[in-house]
Amino acid sequence: MKVFRSPNNPIIKPEDVKPSMYDFEVIGVFNAGVTRFKDEVVLLLRVAERPINKHPDIVLTAIYDVSKGQLIIKEFSKGDPENNFSDPRLIITPKGTYLTSISHLRLARSKDGINFEIEDAPTIRPANDYETFGLEDPRISLIDGTYYINYVGVGHFGVTTCLASTKDFNTFERHGVIFSPDNKDVVLFPERVEGKYYALHRPVSSLFGKQEIWIAESPDLCCWGNHRYLMGPRPNCWDEIKIGASAVPFKIVLGAPYGEQGWLEVYHGVDRNNRYCLGALLLDSQEPWKVIARTEKPIFEPEADYECNGFFGNVVFSCGLLCEDDKLKIYYGAADTVICYAELSLEETIKGLNLFG
Amino acid sequence: MKVFRSPNNPIIKPEDVKPSMYDFEVIGVFNAGVTRFKDEVVLLLRVAERPINKHPDIVLTAIYDVSKGQLIIKEFSKGDPENNFSDPRLIITPKGTYLTSISHLRLARSKDGINFEIEDAPTIRPANDYETFGLEDPRISLIDGTYYINYVGVGHFGVTTCLASTKDFNTFERHGVIFSPDNKDVVLFPERVEGKYYALHRPVSSLFGKQEIWIAESPDLCCWGNHRYLMGPRPNCWDEIKIGASAVPFKIVLGAPYGEQGWLEVYHGVDRNNRYCLGALLLDSQEPWKVIARTEKPIFEPEADYECNGFFGNVVFSCGLLCEDDKLKIYYGAADTVICYAELSLEETIKGLNLFG
Repeated sequence: MKVFRSPNNPIIKPEDVKPSMYDFEVIGVFNAGVTRFKDEVVLLLRVAERPINKHPDIVLTAIYDVSKGQLIIKEFSKGDPENNFSDPRLIITPKGTYLTSISHLRLARSKDGINFEIEDAPTIRPANDYETFGLEDPRISLIDGTYYINYVGVGHFGVTTCLASTKDFNTFERHGVIFSPDNKDVVLFPERVEGKYYALHRPVSSLFGKQEIWIAESPDLCCWGNHRYLMGPRPNCWDEIKIGASAVPFKIVLGAPYGEQGWLEVYHGVDRNNRYCLGALLLDSQEPWKVIARTEKPIFEPEADYECNGFFGNVVFSCGLLCEDDKLKIYYGAADTVICYAELSLEETIKGLNLFG
Repeated sequence: MKVFRSPNNPIIKPEDVKPSMYDFEVIGVFNAGVTRFKDEVVLLLRVAERPINKHPDIVLTAIYDVSKGQLIIKEFSKGDPENNFSDPRLIITPKGTYLTSISHLRLARSKDGINFEIEDAPTIRPANDYETFGLEDPRISLIDGTYYINYVGVGHFGVTTCLASTKDFNTFERHGVIFSPDNKDVVLFPERVEGKYYALHRPVSSLFGKQEIWIAESPDLCCWGNHRYLMGPRPNCWDEIKIGASAVPFKIVLGAPYGEQGWLEVYHGVDRNNRYCLGALLLDSQEPWKVIARTEKPIFEPEADYECNGFFGNVVFSCGLLCEDDKLKIYYGAADTVICYAELSLEETIKGLNLFG
C-alpha cells in the first residue's frame, strides 16, 4: 500500500500546545477526532500533560480532584521498590494504578487541513468521577446535523466511554457514560441502519483476556444493547494481540457480488511487540454486524522516525479520517507524541480487502 | 441478625436433579432466580454438570459447540505442568481458560416454597457463542406482567449478561446480550422510575481491578446507558474485596426523615478469604442512583455445615427472594453446591441499616 505522508509531519507537536496550567508541560498531542465544520477541518486533540518535574528521584503526575474541582499533583518516589514504572504510561503502586500524564481534549481548526490554529485552553476537560485520570481518544460522528463526540474517560472506577455533543463547536453538552468499564475504541456510525444507531466497541474480558471488536445498537445513542462479537485478533499476524475500531466508519460504493454499498472501517491492531498498525475492514451496509472482508496486511505501518520513536514508539493510531477526493485523509497519533497526516488511495484500500478475488 | 434456616435445608441437592445428558453428573444446583407464578413459587435453578470421569489422571469438562449444536467433552491432563487447576471452578491452560463444569437453567415449582418439583430437562440451555461455557445466576423480575430473566452467559468472548422473557414459564423469548463483557450480577428493577427502567450491574475494570456495583438506565430493558458508579467494597470489612447485586430490589415503606419509600437491595460481598456473605442497602425511591444506607455487618453469613463445606465453601449467595408477611424469604446457593431457604425479619433488616440513628 502506497502511503503519502505530509512533508509537514508532524503537523502538531507538544510544543505547539499551551499547557492548561502554568507549571505543567505538554508531553503528547495525538489521537485526534476529526470532522469538517463549515469551511474548516476541525480536530479535537488529545493533549497529555504532566507537572514540570525538576527532581530526578520522584515522578509527578496530576489527577482531577472532584471535590476541589481542579487538578492536583501526585508525587511518587522512584526509590520505592513497591512502585512499578516499567510501562511509560502507568504508575503501578500498592495503593492503586495511576497514569503518568493526564489528558484533555482541545480544539484545533484549519483551512487547508495541514496548518492548524490550536485553542489556548482545554475544550473538554476532566469534570467528574469518571474522568479523574483524564479524557482520551475522541471520535467525532456527524449524525443528523449534530456532532457527537465520544471519548474515553479514565477514572478510579475504570476505563469508560462517555458521550458529548455540539452543533457549533462552541458549546458542548455531556450525555454521561455510554459504555461501562472497561470499554474503549468506540465509534458511532454516522447514520441509522433500519432505524437503529450502531457503534463498534472494544470491551475487555478480564477472565478470558480478550480485546476484540464488538458491535452494539441503540435507539438514542445513549443506551446500548444487543452486543455482538464482530471480529478478533489473528494469530501470528500484525493484529495478533488486540484490535479496536479507530476511525468513524463511512459508506463506500462497491460493485456486485458484494452489494451496492458497505461500511469501511479503519481499525488498529497490535502485535506481540506492542507495534500499532492500521488495517481496514468492510461491513455489510444493511447488516453491519456482518464482516464482509478484512485486509490481510496493514494498510499503514509505523516507518517514519516520528512514528518509531517517541513517548511510546512504533505506533500509528487514528481516531478519525476524512474520505474525500477518493482518498483516505488520515489524521493519526504517532508514537503517542505528535499528530501527523497521511493520505491513502481509497481504491488501493478496497483492493487490499481482496473483495474481487 | 436472627436467621431462620429451614430444617429441610438443603431444599434442593445435586442428586435431586436429572443430568441433561446420559453420561453426565450434576455437581451443583445453586444460585436460583425466584418469583411467584399463579399459586406456586417458581425457581429457575443454576444446574452445574460435567461428564462422569473415571480416570484419575485427567479432568473432563464440557463446552457447547455452536456449529454442532450440542455439548462436547474436553479433556485436560492433570500431569501437564502448564495446566493450572488451583481454583476448583477453573482450568487455566496456555491455550485458554475453561470452566470445570457447564451450567444451564432449570425450572422448579412448589406450592409450599420448600418442596419443589424439578423439571427433567434444561429450561434454558447454551445456544450461542456467548454461552459456550454455560448459563449462570439467573434473576427474575416481574415487570408489567412479563417475567424478565437475566442471566450470565459465559463464553470464549467473556462474561456477559443476557436477557430472556416469558409470560407463562413455558415459552421463552431471548433478547440478546444486554451488558457486554465482563459484566455480571445484574438485577432489573421491577418497575420504572419516572419512565425509565433501571438495573444494578457489576462491570470489571481490568486496569484498575475493581468489582463494584453500578447503576444504569434504559428505555426498553435491552439497551442500557447513563452508567453510574453506585457503591464499592469497604476496606477491612466483610465486603472488602468485591461486591455485587444479588436479589431483585423491591420497594419498602419507610418513615420520615428518609422519604416515604425506598428500594431495598440484598447484595453480596466477598472478603480476602473468599467468604461470601449477604448485606442490605437502601436506595432512594425516586433517585435510585443515591445510596441512603447500607448495613455495617452482614445480614446473613455462612455458618451451617452445608454453607461452609462443598464445591466452593463459605458461600451464601442469593439471586432472589420473596418479601412476604414482613419477612425476607431468601433462596440461596450454599457452597456453590446446594439450594437452601432462610427467613429474615424485614423489620430487623431495616434496623440493621441504621436509618434512625
